[in-house]
Amino acid sequence: MKKPTVVMFGVGAMGSIIARMLLERDAEIVGAVARSTVGKTLGEVSSLEGDAARVVVEADAAEVLARTKPDLVVMTIASYMEDVKEPVLTCLRHGANVISLAEENLYSWHTSPEDTAEIDRVARENGVTYTCSGHQDGYWVQLVATLMGTAHRIDEVRGKASWNVDDFGPELARDQQVGDTAEEFAAWLGTAERPPTFGRNSLHAVAAASGLTVEHSTTETEPVFATEDMRCAALDTTVPAGRVIGFTDIDVVTTKEGPRLVLEMTGKVYSPGEADSNAWVLKGEPDLDLENQVLPTHLTTCATLVNRVPQVLNAEPGYVTVAGLPRLQYMGGPISSHLA
Amino acid sequence: MKKPTVVMFGVGAMGSIIARMLLERDAEIVGAVARSTVGKTLGEVSSLEGDAARVVVEADAAEVLARTKPDLVVMTIASYMEDVKEPVLTCLRHGANVISLAEENLYSWHTSPEDTAEIDRVARENGVTYTCSGHQDGYWVQLVATLMGTAHRIDEVRGKASWNVDDFGPELARDQQVGDTAEEFAAWLGTAERPPTFGRNSLHAVAAASGLTVEHSTTETEPVFATEDMRCAALDTTVPAGRVIGFTDIDVVTTKEGPRLVLEMTGKVYSPGEADSNAWVLKGEPDLDLENQVLPTHLTTCATLVNRVPQVLNAEPGYVTVAGLPRLQYMGGPISSHLA
Repeated sequence: MKKPTVVMFGVGAMGSIIARMLLERDAEIVGAVARSTVGKTLGEVSSLEGDAARVVVEADAAEVLARTKPDLVVMTIASYMEDVKEPVLTCLRHGANVISLAEENLYSWHTSPEDTAEIDRVARENGVTYTCSGHQDGYWVQLVATLMGTAHRIDEVRGKASWNVDDFGPELARDQQVGDTAEEFAAWLGTAERPPTFGRNSLHAVAAASGLTVEHSTTETEPVFATEDMRCAALDTTVPAGRVIGFTDIDVVTTKEGPRLVLEMTGKVYSPGEADSNAWVLKGEPDLDLENQVLPTHLTTCATLVNRVPQVLNAEPGYVTVAGLPRLQYMGGPISSHLA
Repeated sequence: MKKPTVVMFGVGAMGSIIARMLLERDAEIVGAVARSTVGKTLGEVSSLEGDAARVVVEADAAEVLARTKPDLVVMTIASYMEDVKEPVLTCLRHGANVISLAEENLYSWHTSPEDTAEIDRVARENGVTYTCSGHQDGYWVQLVATLMGTAHRIDEVRGKASWNVDDFGPELARDQQVGDTAEEFAAWLGTAERPPTFGRNSLHAVAAASGLTVEHSTTETEPVFATEDMRCAALDTTVPAGRVIGFTDIDVVTTKEGPRLVLEMTGKVYSPGEADSNAWVLKGEPDLDLENQVLPTHLTTCATLVNRVPQVLNAEPGYVTVAGLPRLQYMGGPISSHLA
């Protein structure tokens, strides 16, 4: 079986790690597309070595795809359907399978039904597959759906996850309204036009992976306040006690079959000693739980995507979500040894 | 799709819970086989109600199978291949699919290869499937294999699980050598002819579910000593400090592809405040972990088996392990709605 050929669409932090992992799995990187580092080599924008290091980043995706005819495009450029739809369609029309980190596309049949149907149609017409994977695939969907598989009756499944604003720089800190007063936060929340939460798309994927039919989806947002003066490294400032240090999105998905799915996702400035965790509690017969305390999210994001590559290359054409792929599985050996 | 018909082979504690869960999933219980309660009804030996309560427990499996021609037999009579092989073959030869709790059969290709091959052959000849599921399926195989699917490189996966001798009565307490001196334990261990550990079979299933090739399997056994005088309810006695309160089996499975799989299983008398847990640590890129603290094992055993029923009825003929079935999934709605 020949090595799969890959074009990297996006060569930032995630793209660079994924490219290295793909090379360690015997893929061949034949092209790179990005907006901001055009003309540089992958060796210059990442730590890649060997032939892949000499691949030059280009701006014109269609040109790269027409020339290199890759088996797969790895897309790491954006989170939302509106930002990835046209780039994905371009890849599919050039006969390339696509796997992305676009969080909304983990399961976008409810949040962007028309665009999802268009991607599905174009993928089928061209005999290729589009899938989104990443950290959510493993920790918010597959582990949860597997835990649910050990229950006889489910009333509610509730997940709690969090991330530290200080891990992501000033832009995201401002997005999380760090430093707001309660009044400022309420005013922002009342008028904010926010895209769908990643939690909602993840719960839709959990439902699909469990054969459940989504009825209603709601999101509530609650501010988290500093209980004492707190240092915010991302903004290089001190947040006074009583001001906002971030917020929690509480996504609730109800299903026709009964189980209620909830995900509480908090992005805030951490206190010393606080760490990410991923914790799920199931209420039903019986009550169950699951927790991960070690969460190197950037690496699980990339590793999970790479482990999905042979499944995506083997999948039926169309928009195939991780709810419709086989069980998430560690890849022993090169990608080519797992191709059908 | 018609209701699947089921014969219960074994009507003890687990069989009774499973029968109730099956009825709540719209299965029809058409027969019952057991050694010790022959002539009683399922209503008398369990809390079942309705038509199923009037099913009479019989001794002659072949006669029950020939008369009732069930779609499925649920077997809850023993843990090891040598004890279930003939009953399983009888069911398969009567054209019934079988799902069991026989722990060795979770993955018995390495521990009982010839018997496993015979079961596989007879199942294929009769167009039916034999699978073993239970608590291990969810907590020692599927969750672990899914966690592994979020790693790029795995050096070692190590699980720790435990159970309380006092939950299982005097026979198992004596099996765990409770009350032995260190010398008595060493003498017993030196000559004991013990069957394969359930840990070994579970790790073999993890390897199979992850596309890994088993090289070597070893088991080491270490006593656990009382650090102070301890009450053992199962034996209605006090174990003096320094005496054995149980032991730990440490199973190690090495694989051709590199990952080393380890399961430390401790069965001992618990101290006040100690509780079961299921904890796994993965060393590699990146390091990862997983823990369950709520472990109602008898219910997860039964619920997991029941959730596997449609997959077993849909499966290709043969000895199909849980490593070869689709992802473990919660069953919303009746069994019949999940049949292909």
